Amino acid sequence: MVLVISNWDTFLTPYVQAVEELKVKLKGLREQYQLSSKHTPIEFVTGRVKPVTSILEKAQRKNIPLDRIGREMQDIAGVRLVCQFVNDIDTIVELIRSRSDFNVVEERDYIKRKKESGYRSYHMVIEYSVHTIDGEKSVLVELQVRTMAMNFWATIEHSLNYKYSGEIPDEIKERLQRAAEAAFQLDEEMSKIKGEVREAQQIITKNRENSSN
Amino acid sequence: MVLVISNWDTFLTPYVQAVEELKVKLKGLREQYQLSSKHTPIEFVTGRVKPVTSILEKAQRKNIPLDRIGREMQDIAGVRLVCQFVNDIDTIVELIRSRSDFNVVEERDYIKRKKESGYRSYHMVIEYSVHTIDGEKSVLVELQVRTMAMNFWATIEHSLNYKYSGEIPDEIKERLQRAAEAAFQLDEEMSKIKGEVREAQQIITKNRENSSN
Amino acid sequence: MVLVISNWDTFLTPYVQAVEELKVKLKGLREQYQLSSKHTPIEFVTGRVKPVTSILEKAQRKNIPLDRIGREMQDIAGVRLVCQFVNDIDTIVELIRSRSDFNVVEERDYIKRKKESGYRSYHMVIEYSVHTIDGEKSVLVELQVRTMAMNFWATIEHSLNYKYSGEIPDEIKERLQRAAEAAFQLDEEMSKIKGEVREAQQIITKNRENSSN
Amino acid sequence: MVLVISNWDTFLTPYVQAVEELKVKLKGLREQYQLSSKHTPIEFVTGRVKPVTSILEKAQRKNIPLDRIGREMQDIAGVRLVCQFVNDIDTIVELIRSRSDFNVVEERDYIKRKKESGYRSYHMVIEYSVHTIDGEKSVLVELQVRTMAMNFWATIEHSLNYKYSGEIPDEIKERLQRAAEAAFQLDEEMSKIKGEVREAQQIITKNRENSSN
Repeated sequence: MVLVISNWDTFLTPYVQAVEELKVKLKGLREQYQLSSKHTPIEFVTGRVKPVTSILEKAQRKNIPLDRIGREMQDIAGVRLVCQFVNDIDTIVELIRSRSDFNVVEERDYIKRKKESGYRSYHMVIEYSVHTIDGEKSVLVELQVRTMAMNFWATIEHSLNYKYSGEIPDEIKERLQRAAEAAFQLDEEMSKIKGEVREAQQIITKNRENSSN
Repeated sequence: MVLVISNWDTFLTPYVQAVEELKVKLKGLREQYQLSSKHTPIEFVTGRVKPVTSILEKAQRKNIPLDRIGREMQDIAGVRLVCQFVNDIDTIVELIRSRSDFNVVEERDYIKRKKESGYRSYHMVIEYSVHTIDGEKSVLVELQVRTMAMNFWATIEHSLNYKYSGEIPDEIKERLQRAAEAAFQLDEEMSKIKGEVREAQQIITKNRENSSN
Repeated sequence: MVLVISNWDTFLTPYVQAVEELKVKLKGLREQYQLSSKHTPIEFVTGRVKPVTSILEKAQRKNIPLDRIGREMQDIAGVRLVCQFVNDIDTIVELIRSRSDFNVVEERDYIKRKKESGYRSYHMVIEYSVHTIDGEKSVLVELQVRTMAMNFWATIEHSLNYKYSGEIPDEIKERLQRAAEAAFQLDEEMSKIKGEVREAQQIITKNRENSSN
Repeated sequence: MVLVISNWDTFLTPYVQAVEELKVKLKGLREQYQLSSKHTPIEFVTGRVKPVTSILEKAQRKNIPLDRIGREMQDIAGVRLVCQFVNDIDTIVELIRSRSDFNVVEERDYIKRKKESGYRSYHMVIEYSVHTIDGEKSVLVELQVRTMAMNFWATIEHSLNYKYSGEIPDEIKERLQRAAEAAFQLDEEMSKIKGEVREAQQIITKNRENSSN
């Protein structure tokens, strides 16, 4: 079976819908955290559907027949959750696992085991159901959870990868890895500060309570 | 039990979230119709959460204790679907009944049995589940399905009702009813044109097919 | 000179930008009216850039060379302001004339002189300047100001025109004109109610002031 | 003169409007860069109006009388432009200086001369004119131009400052400065990679042209 170009709109419609719905659902959580005076583990949420040319290129590269891309290509729909501190990631992962409006079908922890390139992120693949004018459709969506430092680095690696068609010269690859290391150090140090912030804040709150007696 | 003002944000959060999600879901249907070159039965979608002052005023008027408004006041969250032709309403009602992401718990047909005031609309109350940072919450949402003429009239009646605090003078009430009747005539005539449009179009399509032989 | 398809994105960019900016500017006015407790003369604002196929079709029909469409086709960018009452239109027209961020270059009053088809609307063509990455560009934008009843009728006429390729059969044309007449009556009656509403409200306000003495 | 709370909505309306308009204008530039296949110097654009409590707190701290905050507090409206590479900042600054729809009234280069805290950003204060329902109003808006690394660091410093009420303990201050230094190193290394990327790309393009002869 071969999908012709005229089918793409129909094929991608449930993915577009899934990304729109998930963005509203996850941005809603962010607003609820901000309204409650709790620390919000979600800094921002973005989403996109993979362009047709990128789907075709990846299908060829990974040798996926076009009639199986719906099940075997997990990142046709992608939603990204970016946070400030590394341990915010755990909070988000727990929140996502606990929901009943979709199923988590796979998790890949590229933070404990970062990629050779230096890439770090927590990936979750979920099965999400949307209602279209042609009935209910279930699609896979890849959620990427990462800190702002991980995201900053990944954005730049992505554009270099694009420019070098996936074959970044060794010298630049090395620099990218040093940059990845620096981003990692930033995350580490920020995480330590976070703990101190919380301790400090408890002390301040206590002092205030004492002084008001 | 008495809900104090400071609880309102928390109380209304799942309603706000439900309205946002339903707007994205129903606007998505509209975009899918437009992409498909079928006639789109949905002209536009709007939504709102009832302001606290209106909730309080209605609770007092209808004698609903504040700890029961979540179950007994069905229009705290409201979503409106507006269409061009009267029989688009049936298409929308069927689409909504067929979905599995919420349950229809009540339907009120103010089109077959219009209100004394002249008000016409199809109301559906659905039970919709949202995930908040405090877990899953189920809320009631009122869907109003109506034509543009019904909506036009209702918007003006609403603002008159607001201005006269629900007690519109008889003389103006009569005018409003004549206007409602005119809006009804408009819908009737448009419906007849719609049928002819479809017939005409089938003839045109057939002629085209014949001439291309 | 002939514009080839590859130029369309570049050609339309300033029109897209103008529509986005004008929508934000005019929706802002609406929100300001709602915040002030004044009657808001703007019910909603929509905008669109004419699709390339429609531009080409109109250029051919009106015999406009493609290198002159920027100056001679005034509705490539269009913004619509819809209001409740007929005399809201005057308020909006005054607001638009008084602005210094664009120039009104033409006005056509299809309300005092409605089109043969029954079409009513107030049209204003403005010259609006946008800054793109290639510098400052000035484009024409057509503003359509109309009531909800005028808009309701025009939407349906537009879709019939589209379906009949501009040649609506006489019988349906007659029905459309009767519908236009009904829409006009609706607007007339609503306008009269509006006056009474205002008078009534002044009486109510006075009564309240007296009773509080 | 003392502004009472009831005036804040009116006072802030032109600031809200200015931020909305500038976001649409600057996001428009970003989309135009993406459409042209040029490198886009703008990664994302955000904007906000300072909350009333923060305005009051800053007015007291800086000893600004409330009737002069419109002229003396330059960041009541703020728009942030975030980019990938340090020298994208120059491109953005030039773009902003060249526009005729607002005037740049002040520039502060916290990149050449970073703040003692480690803060780096390029600030521009512009005078921007909006049309409200009460006529034309001119307001000051602060534009912050920075890289993603600068932004990442500044976001965290801002939340620590908020938590410590501006008095971050020395030990944490030192860590923040080391983190700022790491962010700076990241930017430096990325800038060098950028140059190589461009050189490499010119070589690739040339090779392609040669091989196609």
